[in-house]
Amino acid sequence: MSQPSVSPFRVIDLIRKKRDGGTLSTAEIGYLVEGCTLGSIPDYQMAAWLMAVVLRGMTREETAALTHSMLHSGEVLDLSFLPAKKVDKHSTGGVGDKTSLVLAPLVAAGGLYVPMISGRGLGHTGGTLDKLESIPGFRVDLSVPEFHRVLKACGASMIGQTEKVAPADRKLYALRDVTGTVESPYLICASIMSKKLAEGTDALVLDVKTGSGAFMKKEEDAVFLAELMVETGELMGKQMVALITNMDQPLGRMVGNALEVQECIEVLHGGGPPDLRELCLHLAAWMFHLGGVAKTVAEGKQLSGEIIASGKAFERFRQMVELQGGDVSTIDDPSRLPSADYRVDVGSPSTGYVSAIDCEQVGTACVILGGGREKKEDSVDPAVGIVIHKKIGDKVAAGEPLCTIYCHSDAHAAHARKLLEESYTIAPTPPAHRPSLIHRVIHKGEH
Amino acid sequence: MSQPSVSPFRVIDLIRKKRDGGTLSTAEIGYLVEGCTLGSIPDYQMAAWLMAVVLRGMTREETAALTHSMLHSGEVLDLSFLPAKKVDKHSTGGVGDKTSLVLAPLVAAGGLYVPMISGRGLGHTGGTLDKLESIPGFRVDLSVPEFHRVLKACGASMIGQTEKVAPADRKLYALRDVTGTVESPYLICASIMSKKLAEGTDALVLDVKTGSGAFMKKEEDAVFLAELMVETGELMGKQMVALITNMDQPLGRMVGNALEVQECIEVLHGGGPPDLRELCLHLAAWMFHLGGVAKTVAEGKQLSGEIIASGKAFERFRQMVELQGGDVSTIDDPSRLPSADYRVDVGSPSTGYVSAIDCEQVGTACVILGGGREKKEDSVDPAVGIVIHKKIGDKVAAGEPLCTIYCHSDAHAAHARKLLEESYTIAPTPPAHRPSLIHRVIHKGEH
Repeated sequence: MSQPSVSPFRVIDLIRKKRDGGTLSTAEIGYLVEGCTLGSIPDYQMAAWLMAVVLRGMTREETAALTHSMLHSGEVLDLSFLPAKKVDKHSTGGVGDKTSLVLAPLVAAGGLYVPMISGRGLGHTGGTLDKLESIPGFRVDLSVPEFHRVLKACGASMIGQTEKVAPADRKLYALRDVTGTVESPYLICASIMSKKLAEGTDALVLDVKTGSGAFMKKEEDAVFLAELMVETGELMGKQMVALITNMDQPLGRMVGNALEVQECIEVLHGGGPPDLRELCLHLAAWMFHLGGVAKTVAEGKQLSGEIIASGKAFERFRQMVELQGGDVSTIDDPSRLPSADYRVDVGSPSTGYVSAIDCEQVGTACVILGGGREKKEDSVDPAVGIVIHKKIGDKVAAGEPLCTIYCHSDAHAAHARKLLEESYTIAPTPPAHRPSLIHRVIHKGEH
Repeated sequence: MSQPSVSPFRVIDLIRKKRDGGTLSTAEIGYLVEGCTLGSIPDYQMAAWLMAVVLRGMTREETAALTHSMLHSGEVLDLSFLPAKKVDKHSTGGVGDKTSLVLAPLVAAGGLYVPMISGRGLGHTGGTLDKLESIPGFRVDLSVPEFHRVLKACGASMIGQTEKVAPADRKLYALRDVTGTVESPYLICASIMSKKLAEGTDALVLDVKTGSGAFMKKEEDAVFLAELMVETGELMGKQMVALITNMDQPLGRMVGNALEVQECIEVLHGGGPPDLRELCLHLAAWMFHLGGVAKTVAEGKQLSGEIIASGKAFERFRQMVELQGGDVSTIDDPSRLPSADYRVDVGSPSTGYVSAIDCEQVGTACVILGGGREKKEDSVDPAVGIVIHKKIGDKVAAGEPLCTIYCHSDAHAAHARKLLEESYTIAPTPPAHRPSLIHRVIHKGEH
């Protein structure tokens, strides 16, 4: 004589099922995600389920079901009114990782649309929104109609996640953050993919970082996550590729928000450090290839170089900055970008070769200067940062600067300086190899 | 320049440590238990940690630290004023498992003190407090001074857990119940032992049930938990033994609160069904042995039989009932105990031998009659129950009653009857063995 139940499932049964290594159905996962988002399932039950997922894992189908439920917990943009393919890039985060600011205008200049919804920096990694906001006046909080207008006008727009996109992810991420359940490839995949697919993109190029400055220090973990994301995106009808790229040292030479914008402008003008330039060209090549503009990746790469050389990529960037309220005089003259005027060189303790850099520690040094966030609520100083002079394999004399700290006072620099000194390893002989930039490409089909 | 932290630990670090298979220190576990009890650590963090414990396990030292913290979260009784050793017995729960009502007066009559804090029935198993409360007037909610007075006067007292005993366990159990984290031997051990050790007992005999009516269906699981509890108790300075006993069929013949009191009175008068009598003698023997009254278990068993035969055990039971406000006329004449007057026989579908009984289902049938609880808030009917006529190995003719339902109406009996019919397996030939009552003894030292 039991009462007919309103809920199709009992949460406790779903927790137990995952705890015991079972597989949840799409409907069961949907029930959990909806209940969590609406608040009808208490946080302690979700926390227990999340920990069971961390320790038991998920099948591909469960991961896709989780991504799908989280995606459809909120608004999914419809960009079908745009007359060409929509492509985007997502990076798992690194130090000095600033390619988005180059890629969006570059790929837009090649005839595709880049609707880019980005995040803020957290922990040792920087965030695209923080970099953009170092351009005075630049607005990342466009409304959806404004986002549409900018996209239509210049082919690219870069904004922050709105409240309406994937609310389940916001709810779940906040809970994961305090319950030790962030570090699960299945949950990371669903979190990234639910937000990225809400942009209404047709194709997605993933830049999955590995090395001392990445979240995934081990390449095997990066590959596992990359394959999971590629398969999940494909199960959801998107064109996907993942590049496993090196993060054993900062990308480019600049770490810090305004400094990184300045370096992107160099690349858009045809210059910039070779590793940053190379990675941008390669990622853009894949975006052009998946977007149907280039038959091969090689062709896409050549096209990317041509677009930069023509000045069109820079022109698009300038246009986007203007449309989003930014002060273009700082783009035309990057010396007008915020820049801290107290400089401290970090000298090499000995003569030799840079054999390793603890890249996460470089990112942490930037956070300590005020250029990143320890907590979500922290504000960010656009003017501070670190300019890297020596990278892995470079020869250095005792006392010669390894890098320069941009900050506001000597006291301010002290802690960062210590971290930077510790992060460099100097050896008497050159390392056998310099790190290769692109370790692997994960893609189904020819390229 | 980080702020000096008030807390010695970060909860997130402790969750991650357990998630990654690490070992927590005594101080770390104490911090979690205290924070959970005081409410300073949110339930969602404890839930994640509990799930990590379920899937990663704990060392002996961690289990003892958890037990210790939970024990000292509340009041620990000091019974040092009593002039002899204090011993107790704890059972992990079964169907028809009523030995406590025999053991407390029996062992008290032998010169030891039995300060017994018991629980209520939940799910398919019965609870000592519910059985005692079927004696009209019997109070299980004595204050600590009243408990002391009864113990002093008759050597045994049986009460419920007060609010002041192990509040951490109440908090944690409520959370485990809704987060799928009940089924962990480490957490079960800490929960049982923290409550039992709060009684101020010197020695503890554990009756760990295994079989179709036990929580641990598999003997290996029962042995694992038993060893854990014995080692934990010993680490905390207590004399310990665990008996692994059979629960493949109800213990004795009676299932249901007043019916079970009646059967205990039979045993205290020197009668009762052989399995119940045998288990009571054996458990009492170990209590006498650990309490130093009997040099060997065999000697303890002989003593137990003599005390019953002398009528002293019954006399102590009668005295305890009187001291705790119970109507002794129902003890002197058990036909005055509550008894449902509608009886339904469950007949055998065929001629043959009872080869198996789904003992959990028999317990569930009793719950459905109103004799147990599905939810903590449910009230219990003392008058209903099941009288078992046929046990494993017994010969039975088609139509002959396997058991009899005691209830209030035919409608009332219907669901229970179906469960009982399904719970019996009748085979044409006798089973190879009847279940042996005591499978194993876990004890360090000679016996």
